Amino acid sequence: MTRSDTMADALPPPLLADEWLNADGPIELAALRGKVVLLHAFQMLCPGCLSHGLPQAERVHRLFRGKDVAVIGLHTVFEHHDVMSPAALRAFNHEYRWSFPIGIDRPAASGAIPMTMQAYGLRGTPSLVLLDRRGHVRLQHFGSIDDLALGAAIGRLLAEDDAALDNAAVPDGSARPECDAESCPAPA
Amino acid sequence: MTRSDTMADALPPPLLADEWLNADGPIELAALRGKVVLLHAFQMLCPGCLSHGLPQAERVHRLFRGKDVAVIGLHTVFEHHDVMSPAALRAFNHEYRWSFPIGIDRPAASGAIPMTMQAYGLRGTPSLVLLDRRGHVRLQHFGSIDDLALGAAIGRLLAEDDAALDNAAVPDGSARPECDAESCPAPA
Amino acid sequence: MTRSDTMADALPPPLLADEWLNADGPIELAALRGKVVLLHAFQMLCPGCLSHGLPQAERVHRLFRGKDVAVIGLHTVFEHHDVMSPAALRAFNHEYRWSFPIGIDRPAASGAIPMTMQAYGLRGTPSLVLLDRRGHVRLQHFGSIDDLALGAAIGRLLAEDDAALDNAAVPDGSARPECDAESCPAPA
Amino acid sequence: MTRSDTMADALPPPLLADEWLNADGPIELAALRGKVVLLHAFQMLCPGCLSHGLPQAERVHRLFRGKDVAVIGLHTVFEHHDVMSPAALRAFNHEYRWSFPIGIDRPAASGAIPMTMQAYGLRGTPSLVLLDRRGHVRLQHFGSIDDLALGAAIGRLLAEDDAALDNAAVPDGSARPECDAESCPAPA
Repeated sequence: MTRSDTMADALPPPLLADEWLNADGPIELAALRGKVVLLHAFQMLCPGCLSHGLPQAERVHRLFRGKDVAVIGLHTVFEHHDVMSPAALRAFNHEYRWSFPIGIDRPAASGAIPMTMQAYGLRGTPSLVLLDRRGHVRLQHFGSIDDLALGAAIGRLLAEDDAALDNAAVPDGSARPECDAESCPAPA
Repeated sequence: MTRSDTMADALPPPLLADEWLNADGPIELAALRGKVVLLHAFQMLCPGCLSHGLPQAERVHRLFRGKDVAVIGLHTVFEHHDVMSPAALRAFNHEYRWSFPIGIDRPAASGAIPMTMQAYGLRGTPSLVLLDRRGHVRLQHFGSIDDLALGAAIGRLLAEDDAALDNAAVPDGSARPECDAESCPAPA
Repeated sequence: MTRSDTMADALPPPLLADEWLNADGPIELAALRGKVVLLHAFQMLCPGCLSHGLPQAERVHRLFRGKDVAVIGLHTVFEHHDVMSPAALRAFNHEYRWSFPIGIDRPAASGAIPMTMQAYGLRGTPSLVLLDRRGHVRLQHFGSIDDLALGAAIGRLLAEDDAALDNAAVPDGSARPECDAESCPAPA
Repeated sequence: MTRSDTMADALPPPLLADEWLNADGPIELAALRGKVVLLHAFQMLCPGCLSHGLPQAERVHRLFRGKDVAVIGLHTVFEHHDVMSPAALRAFNHEYRWSFPIGIDRPAASGAIPMTMQAYGLRGTPSLVLLDRRGHVRLQHFGSIDDLALGAAIGRLLAEDDAALDNAAVPDGSARPECDAESCPAPA
């Protein structure tokens, strides 16, 4: 898929979050135009998020700070809603001292999966979405991805001006019924 | 300190826990006489517990299963009580699939520190207590301890019959005001 | 520095190697035009090369195989020449099973530092040189570099067509007298 | 097997080494009576020795320094003899800065396997031999062993006075034809 395709030209859904941590106020994707954006969707009780995804998001945030890369966390609670409340996330964020902004995905009127997670069609946690400087989704990945591959994907997007690029999407693994050490799949 | 000392001869306080996970019922230290006991005190939102203490307790449990070593987790919540509830711990335990029994330390009538944690004088989480086959405390440590040193301490206690041994206590670090990557100190 | 600068327009020195391992024959940089080239200079007895640089070169080789990235090892022996002979390197290569081609840098007529290492002005091992698709040096680094940063540098070069790019050079550490866990500096 | 068994009562073969590094002179097992001895047999070009065995021997040496544990390295070259010469080992030892004494196992009059390695019946590298305070072999292991298990074995032996102990031997893996990431088996 290239950037001239219809799909790539459509902008991604907005981030629906009523509360933001580590930020002065709500974060709008539109305001990040011109930057590469890494969106990291996680749950605070997801083992793969704790052991891999969140520390990686933190490393990306620190490495590219001030270099046209914005890292955004999104707490996409789709299970154990009662114990992964905003208050619980605040305590978690306080103890782990994440430095990137984290939004709390808005619960849906019905169903377990929150609204932004639904709109992006995320399959579970951890999930990673990369947007290019023009605001288009270029990579969406469920599960863990290693630093070398993620670095390369970010580097490609940073280098882009407006030439068409192949979509560097990493193939997803198959659906899994519940959290394992790597990830927490959402219900289908 | 040797086993003939008065202090070492006193048995440690009982485990005051109203709920046990990964166990058929309450666990009494008296019933473990004859085994070496590793008591791991943790909080589910303590970074050092997640990154080091709990995985180590799990490794000890798996390595010495059926070999006269009993591993017991104790959820000693002394901060963020509202979000480290028994329900939250159950979800945490479900996602991480710990295999050793975990008791929930009984809240004190007043004050933040739960009763067993107080009775043992634990300074924060993670903390580790080793009991010998006769039920006496032989090592109490706040913070992380490496596998080689912990293995040696367990090996020594396994080898003991009833000769007096020097107390192999590892010196504690100094008090710290709040959680860091290693540990969460309790208020003084 | 941009690609329109005089220095960047000069092509780098050729690889002077009389023997190649894991290759069908000599490798010429000119034949790799169109690809991003990662040149990894190492010594088989350099601790930082073994613990970090060589495994990283192997990971890059495996991740980008068939994707316009060529990884080349260069055995730049500048100390302990008698025990880091071609025969020793062959045994080392056999035991470690590196999959990327490795050239043996040609000894200089006088002095400890071999010819390619001298020509590139490498400061010690491990050193990493990145060439863009047009064959120009874009990054030269002494010591270790983490996967995220290396991935990003490779990704940027892969994305390039012919727009001018800032040189993403990583600043070098200061000179060190002998090998430490990270690297082996060459004599000044 | 207990210490009253005939085999356990026989003392192990002497260390046949003509050169010692990191030591003031030859090391005799008899002079270490009263200490627990960890003998680590390795080859400098064995990947599993570099990645696991040698760093573990170094950790044991540092943790138990002055605490009745003696760590001894033994360079048991059984392949690539020409490039794992004493001179090569000296350079290797210089670069890696091992702090424990290392003996060079004496080449046999015929055959690839050196004399001490033969006498102990070691199957390859890395191999680990643990001697108790009375000088008897209590554990012999080919391949890697984790810190918790090794610590426990050392702790047991440190605690011993003269009670009979079960042999805590770790079962060996099956023979492998050449070095892999874990170990280098010797020819049968």
